[in-house]
Amino acid sequence: MLINRECNILIVGLGLIGGSYARGLKKLGFHVSAVTRNPATIEYALKHHIIDEGTTDIDPQMIGKADIVVFSLYPHVFKEWIAANQQFIKPGALITDVTGVKSCIVYDIQASLRDDLEFIAAHPMAGKEVYGVENSDEKIFYGANFIIVPTDKNTEEAIEICREMALLLQFGRISVLSPEEHDEMIGFVSQLTHCIAVTLMNCSDNELLVNYVGDSFRDLTRIARINEDMWSELFLLNKESLLREMDKFLGEFKSLRDELAADDTEGMKEKMRVSTKRRALFDKPV
Amino acid sequence: MLINRECNILIVGLGLIGGSYARGLKKLGFHVSAVTRNPATIEYALKHHIIDEGTTDIDPQMIGKADIVVFSLYPHVFKEWIAANQQFIKPGALITDVTGVKSCIVYDIQASLRDDLEFIAAHPMAGKEVYGVENSDEKIFYGANFIIVPTDKNTEEAIEICREMALLLQFGRISVLSPEEHDEMIGFVSQLTHCIAVTLMNCSDNELLVNYVGDSFRDLTRIARINEDMWSELFLLNKESLLREMDKFLGEFKSLRDELAADDTEGMKEKMRVSTKRRALFDKPV
Repeated sequence: MLINRECNILIVGLGLIGGSYARGLKKLGFHVSAVTRNPATIEYALKHHIIDEGTTDIDPQMIGKADIVVFSLYPHVFKEWIAANQQFIKPGALITDVTGVKSCIVYDIQASLRDDLEFIAAHPMAGKEVYGVENSDEKIFYGANFIIVPTDKNTEEAIEICREMALLLQFGRISVLSPEEHDEMIGFVSQLTHCIAVTLMNCSDNELLVNYVGDSFRDLTRIARINEDMWSELFLLNKESLLREMDKFLGEFKSLRDELAADDTEGMKEKMRVSTKRRALFDKPV
Repeated sequence: MLINRECNILIVGLGLIGGSYARGLKKLGFHVSAVTRNPATIEYALKHHIIDEGTTDIDPQMIGKADIVVFSLYPHVFKEWIAANQQFIKPGALITDVTGVKSCIVYDIQASLRDDLEFIAAHPMAGKEVYGVENSDEKIFYGANFIIVPTDKNTEEAIEICREMALLLQFGRISVLSPEEHDEMIGFVSQLTHCIAVTLMNCSDNELLVNYVGDSFRDLTRIARINEDMWSELFLLNKESLLREMDKFLGEFKSLRDELAADDTEGMKEKMRVSTKRRALFDKPV
């Protein structure tokens, strides 16, 4: 193991995901500190033993102690924070993140970083439709997918540390993708699905629907409860990939619609056979 | 209560839903018999005490004993069965069903039925992405929505018996809709969502996706495992409503796509605010 329990870990941005990292890592015995914007968040996190120490200030001493810094911020805030405060980070520290888009930030941050620091991007594929440290829970990571997103500037050691942290936090499958592969994939499996859920809820203002729906509608719209500031930013930062996925989806959906209009039973059945076969792969145990 | 435990209940079509009715009703003390196509189904159901008696034959004696007959068949098979065998049903018996589409069958069956029989349509909004009596489970009904779909040919007593059966099976909200209202609603909350799930799985043949997805993609595609014979029939029998819902969805989705393409952050955010507000209603306790 490259990580050991002596490591001092700093979480920047103590929301749902940052808080869940903090809980999981502190329970494992790491010293966990946090920098976040809202004083009530720090107060809550200290009271509930989610972190060892925390502040809303830019505290050079607290920042300077960290061996690993995990950023859990909106993408533009992450960039601004690095530009303003990277001088306080200890030489040799490893920086990682949980940001939902990669190409638009990874290269910029790696290029702007001091030579004695390394940034290795990562994306834990876990979340909830609620926000804030109060809802954080390290169990959301158990068995979830974890994606490490290195560039040619990254060392094997950094990739390995990322992998170890994911294993310690009990993630399931751990994969490595390039920033471009990551963004294409995330445009499909995460951003497109959020677009669909939001669209479904925008299709009807019938407040009685709640009396009629089954689990299928509930499942397809769970993620329609969405933080509009974060997600509109993520969509725009991955605009080209997401537009491509949306157009592909529109084309396939239109094809099913036209088969129905033309009473093309066999065409519809073939799409259903394909979807049944492909979806079955997802039910295999980890 | 209009229903009492002396009622003899016959289930025609012992699959996932028919089997779940049988389990729930037998546990409540009713005498439950079943007619279904596959001998192995009867064998399984008897062995697991899901029914009291059952047959794959058209047994006039077993049919003639039933006070309530619940049909859980494909729509066209339901119609054929009534045409061929209604003469065996006891005068005064109540017929109900669980069929997923209504306008296209309710009027036809009511018109073709003997004068001493009454058919009251119903739709339990519960299911699973697996099939067959082996997967039946009365717990899928607990707290689920139940819709009674009467016409002006139905008596208040029949509606009340339907409501009582739903209460006994521990459904949650019980609503009454006309066949036309039902089909419009079901086109949206059930059929459209299945179209979306099937389309999503048809968008990508990347077998590695399972390593990358989070719960959002899993949730949106759970129902992509679909019985193509049943669902293509349901889609075609509700074609006009479903096409209308698909086109409405296409228009809304296209609008979100165009807002993204035009960097219209405020437009996207407004859709997200609407979806968040509307979806919140669904999380209220029953």
